[in-house]
Amino acid sequence: MNTYKLVVAGPRGKMGREAVALCLRESQFELVAVIDTQHDGALLKDLDGYIEGDIPVYTNMERCFSELHVDVLIDLTTPAVAKTHMEIALAHGVRPVVGTTGFTEDDIHSLRAQAEQKGIGAVIAPNFAIGAILMMKFAQMAAQYMTDVEIIEQHHDAKLDAPSGTALKTAQLISEVRAPKTQGHSDEEETLAHCRGGDFEGMRIHSVRLPGRVAHQEVLFGGEGQTLSIRHDSLNRASFMPGVKLAVEQVMTLKTLVYGLEHLLD
Amino acid sequence: MNTYKLVVAGPRGKMGREAVALCLRESQFELVAVIDTQHDGALLKDLDGYIEGDIPVYTNMERCFSELHVDVLIDLTTPAVAKTHMEIALAHGVRPVVGTTGFTEDDIHSLRAQAEQKGIGAVIAPNFAIGAILMMKFAQMAAQYMTDVEIIEQHHDAKLDAPSGTALKTAQLISEVRAPKTQGHSDEEETLAHCRGGDFEGMRIHSVRLPGRVAHQEVLFGGEGQTLSIRHDSLNRASFMPGVKLAVEQVMTLKTLVYGLEHLLD
Amino acid sequence: MNTYKLVVAGPRGKMGREAVALCLRESQFELVAVIDTQHDGALLKDLDGYIEGDIPVYTNMERCFSELHVDVLIDLTTPAVAKTHMEIALAHGVRPVVGTTGFTEDDIHSLRAQAEQKGIGAVIAPNFAIGAILMMKFAQMAAQYMTDVEIIEQHHDAKLDAPSGTALKTAQLISEVRAPKTQGHSDEEETLAHCRGGDFEGMRIHSVRLPGRVAHQEVLFGGEGQTLSIRHDSLNRASFMPGVKLAVEQVMTLKTLVYGLEHLLD
Amino acid sequence: MNTYKLVVAGPRGKMGREAVALCLRESQFELVAVIDTQHDGALLKDLDGYIEGDIPVYTNMERCFSELHVDVLIDLTTPAVAKTHMEIALAHGVRPVVGTTGFTEDDIHSLRAQAEQKGIGAVIAPNFAIGAILMMKFAQMAAQYMTDVEIIEQHHDAKLDAPSGTALKTAQLISEVRAPKTQGHSDEEETLAHCRGGDFEGMRIHSVRLPGRVAHQEVLFGGEGQTLSIRHDSLNRASFMPGVKLAVEQVMTLKTLVYGLEHLLD
Repeated sequence: MNTYKLVVAGPRGKMGREAVALCLRESQFELVAVIDTQHDGALLKDLDGYIEGDIPVYTNMERCFSELHVDVLIDLTTPAVAKTHMEIALAHGVRPVVGTTGFTEDDIHSLRAQAEQKGIGAVIAPNFAIGAILMMKFAQMAAQYMTDVEIIEQHHDAKLDAPSGTALKTAQLISEVRAPKTQGHSDEEETLAHCRGGDFEGMRIHSVRLPGRVAHQEVLFGGEGQTLSIRHDSLNRASFMPGVKLAVEQVMTLKTLVYGLEHLLD
Repeated sequence: MNTYKLVVAGPRGKMGREAVALCLRESQFELVAVIDTQHDGALLKDLDGYIEGDIPVYTNMERCFSELHVDVLIDLTTPAVAKTHMEIALAHGVRPVVGTTGFTEDDIHSLRAQAEQKGIGAVIAPNFAIGAILMMKFAQMAAQYMTDVEIIEQHHDAKLDAPSGTALKTAQLISEVRAPKTQGHSDEEETLAHCRGGDFEGMRIHSVRLPGRVAHQEVLFGGEGQTLSIRHDSLNRASFMPGVKLAVEQVMTLKTLVYGLEHLLD
Repeated sequence: MNTYKLVVAGPRGKMGREAVALCLRESQFELVAVIDTQHDGALLKDLDGYIEGDIPVYTNMERCFSELHVDVLIDLTTPAVAKTHMEIALAHGVRPVVGTTGFTEDDIHSLRAQAEQKGIGAVIAPNFAIGAILMMKFAQMAAQYMTDVEIIEQHHDAKLDAPSGTALKTAQLISEVRAPKTQGHSDEEETLAHCRGGDFEGMRIHSVRLPGRVAHQEVLFGGEGQTLSIRHDSLNRASFMPGVKLAVEQVMTLKTLVYGLEHLLD
Repeated sequence: MNTYKLVVAGPRGKMGREAVALCLRESQFELVAVIDTQHDGALLKDLDGYIEGDIPVYTNMERCFSELHVDVLIDLTTPAVAKTHMEIALAHGVRPVVGTTGFTEDDIHSLRAQAEQKGIGAVIAPNFAIGAILMMKFAQMAAQYMTDVEIIEQHHDAKLDAPSGTALKTAQLISEVRAPKTQGHSDEEETLAHCRGGDFEGMRIHSVRLPGRVAHQEVLFGGEGQTLSIRHDSLNRASFMPGVKLAVEQVMTLKTLVYGLEHLLD
């Protein structure tokens, strides 16, 4: 089995901690450094919340990639710095796996050109939860054959926005393969305002907010005499790690930039 | 085991057919006549859709109850005639079990007085589906302890009204034991209008309409770290018969009118 | 839009009735004859349960295909005669769409050769429920990324066999892409015998049998911090018709025999 | 509003930490001391994992109750010491609320006598999750009217025993109101051994074990044309605190020992 030499940027963030744990757990991954905004020259085990790891902390990514041989950068920082990090990584022949949203189309275009010129892979994934990615992919496939669909998403009641980003993304993916259509009875009447939910090109989206829920979504397709339902339940950030692992493995074989984990699934 | 002599009014309606089948199936029930709007003097087996049953058809309820000894009238006709039917039945000492909505409070008051004066039972049940009645009862009980609740009801897409009567009834029952409260985050924002559903004293109600669904409702309670969900699925009118059977058995022991099957359950 | 001339074999069977209704409903389908085991020379509307349709009934398929121009045969008869029907259809350049199980590998091989020699399509589909086919396809895809899986199927309590054929077929499809593995804790102990369900290469299969259920299946995938669930609910045979329609449309463009509706889906 | 003076025993255990947080959060609760096995004379804020709380730590419960006025003891320690703790509390007129299993019938009998003699309340609750208690209570009520029932419980795959204690307790509660009966078809045949699950007086129990699940149970009732399902999902120990709160409030009004939170619900 091949072993990959990895660097994690953002080791003190919530996702970064999970990524460090992933690298330490998986035998084919070797964590060779972490990139932090401070603590240059310290060891991983010196950072708050860590108790082991004789792995160097760099604040300067350029220097890190100059001094060490690195295959993949796992970057779980912020949109503000992720683009620069990707450029530095690609310039040094290090394949970036980035979990940040907020890239413009121009950013992606220029980063892809840089990756292709170097002949190495790069992955940007706004969502690393494989289960959620599969749900969206399946929903889009099913919508070709069952065109009546409603989405029910459920989240904890501290969530500010409704519907969830995943619900909107799912609806958009479905609308790419389905003509807009009015669902329900054409003379339908609401005796309690808004109970039929949000309307996205005819698809109804329902957002439930309750304590005791975390992050859940069901995409429900109806046809004559049958229904098909695809549901994803997410409990915590650990759910992102299988997606990070997949991205690291696949980025080693790519020669371009891939945007979206769904394009790494068969 | 006691045997009860029964009359079914409305034998050619959808519910009436199920009730006739119930009477013929249950060994403790003896169907002694049916009341129809026509076919006086015919036999049950002569009616459209029946192939057996040497049971007389009456168009005149007075005459039926004068000529035959009858314990219970199962009336599955229309609001327009059900009240008169009840009065005739009570006057003849026949206990009515009625599955019609549309009675006024005054109607119920005067029918109850008539039943009590005769010292016999009477049951009016807007909904005979025991599962739905239990769902509503449990929802009301749970709401005393878990006050965050949303209702998701799903029906076929030929349904005209939203939300369903059962959803509104459930919300009303819950509001009897729960103070109105705003649910979800106080700064919650809908980026797609109405996706948070209908608002009934803070409870959100979501109505799904899809082909392939029949009649379904889930009442979902959320609390810190836990959720409790009570769900009823109804596929067809056969689901009403256990409730009719219960009502017939209980009406024999009552001395007053009971409105709502829930009051016959422990 | 092209119009297809169709013949339905087995118009008095439950599935056949649905197929006739489909042909009469869809504007691009023209029903030109039905094949029955009797009533030769009668019209569709003369058959028991039909009230309209001036469409001829044939008992001799050869003669039907000689006298009429036919594009597609929808055959919903029995395994005993379906093979012969397919051979007759192919010999006459009529594309068969067959919903029968019970073909041997040799049967399929020789029928495929016949279809390819004629240069026309043929479809054999043991299951026409698109929702069920999609569920199985998605389950197989998901199992590549989430390898812990259990299947819960629910049917009415008159069903004799457990688990359902669909559950076994799903497990088999998953096992094609997943190495056998022991699921659950390695020291797991059943304090009530068999509560962990049936074991299919490590996947647990649970069969629920209850009145009020029809035919339902949930395939449940678990991963660190997340679950993905794919569920199909089937209420009646109407659920098969979108699959029949798809097969008729696709068989016109095929040049070989396709076994299984899943191979007609993208 | 009344304010209650509380002591928590076991402040460094997982449940104890939640109970301390509850007492600090609720305005009508005043935490006056904690009982630990060590750290006598320290303050709560000195204990590992705490950063605030000028509340004294006692290792000697007798002394604590002699020096302070205490209304209620919340005891979340171990079966080995809980009985002694209860005796000391009752002797000092302090009402115990205990979340430990492992009491014998004799223990309960003698503790109840002690509570009644003192004329104060005491609560022992093997399960403080109100949602789970409600699920069991509703399941028992429903089983009187819908006698076909199966239980599906789902837990993480690190769980050693199957079925869960809650599933067995639920089945036992149902069996108290339901005659044993064989469910499913009488000629039912398993083509995959054990897929019909565990058999508890005819009720089938199915145990699912998957990563990504925490603790979930669905009790499913089937009747002609309908199903009723009661489901509880538990994500973490925070789900126990509303039950602890309820028990504290109720224990102040009791004059005897109550075993089981279900007896504190209407």
